[in-house]
Amino acid sequence: MEKIILGIDPGTNIMGYGVLKVTDRSARMEALGVIDLRKYEDHYLKLGHIFERVSGIIESYLPDEMAIEAPFFGKNVQSMLKLGRAQGTAMAAAIHRQVPITEYAPTKIKMAITGNGNASKEQVADMLRRMLKLDKQEMGKYLDATDALGAAYCHFLQMNRPQTDVKYRSWKDFASKNKDRIND
Amino acid sequence: MEKIILGIDPGTNIMGYGVLKVTDRSARMEALGVIDLRKYEDHYLKLGHIFERVSGIIESYLPDEMAIEAPFFGKNVQSMLKLGRAQGTAMAAAIHRQVPITEYAPTKIKMAITGNGNASKEQVADMLRRMLKLDKQEMGKYLDATDALGAAYCHFLQMNRPQTDVKYRSWKDFASKNKDRIND
Repeated sequence: MEKIILGIDPGTNIMGYGVLKVTDRSARMEALGVIDLRKYEDHYLKLGHIFERVSGIIESYLPDEMAIEAPFFGKNVQSMLKLGRAQGTAMAAAIHRQVPITEYAPTKIKMAITGNGNASKEQVADMLRRMLKLDKQEMGKYLDATDALGAAYCHFLQMNRPQTDVKYRSWKDFASKNKDRIND
Repeated sequence: MEKIILGIDPGTNIMGYGVLKVTDRSARMEALGVIDLRKYEDHYLKLGHIFERVSGIIESYLPDEMAIEAPFFGKNVQSMLKLGRAQGTAMAAAIHRQVPITEYAPTKIKMAITGNGNASKEQVADMLRRMLKLDKQEMGKYLDATDALGAAYCHFLQMNRPQTDVKYRSWKDFASKNKDRIND
């Protein structure tokens, strides 16, 4: 079984992406990069650039799935509206090409990768670097893309969860034993 | 001069649209409708449907411009994130086809059409009906699309503003004399 996972961290200034190639139970990094949106002052140009670039990445790597880092809470309604627009535009590019999307909260990604939901950006990057056997230089240039690669790696770990025989008595019981599988 | 203006009111449950054909200084309604998103439980299916439908409307009517009703404030960050995603998806469909976008706050649309920024939905609909010479039945079926048609009509009024010879001493001066031209 071979699968390509595209991880996206959609921001309004910098958008990170990371592509993982999964073969059976191992993952390899295929691409890592950032889309710098700061040079576009116009809000619509930013959205247009997100749509075109995400579309281009999808056409280049033909991902089977897309994983998005999606904070569910923000400082204020204004910034959430802007973030929602950036997310919606990136999602539209994926949906338009029939690529299924899974969202992960930042704490969930940190937890899945480092075992600590409050890990720093550097700790997540360091863990990813070791697990994917990347050299420091390769990672260092694109620190902003780490969250995106983290989302893809988190999705890879979810896919590979062993199916256990645990029985659940109720949804409440399931929820209490699977807090990390409930996204929102 | 002939221009087609597409008005959109992007919501997460019902999305309204209205198409105006502008010839010189008069406007005629070409289309009015709603996209019902309530039947799609899945959030991504909703976004996908918004993208496909807005794309379809653009391909059918080939608008020169798109006007969006865009509230800048909401109850909470969660609803603003969802609204932002719906807006971003509709915007991506327009940007992808090089259709320029202008946003109008709901109070601005109400003010432009009825002269009262706090007018009711019914007052806006009634005024649009009279200005566009539509029969009640034509409007009544699509009350949810009125806001979209209102956005298109508001954009039409903006386009036709007489250019005056007023001189401005500074941006501050311009802003104080043109509060209704500053969108955010």
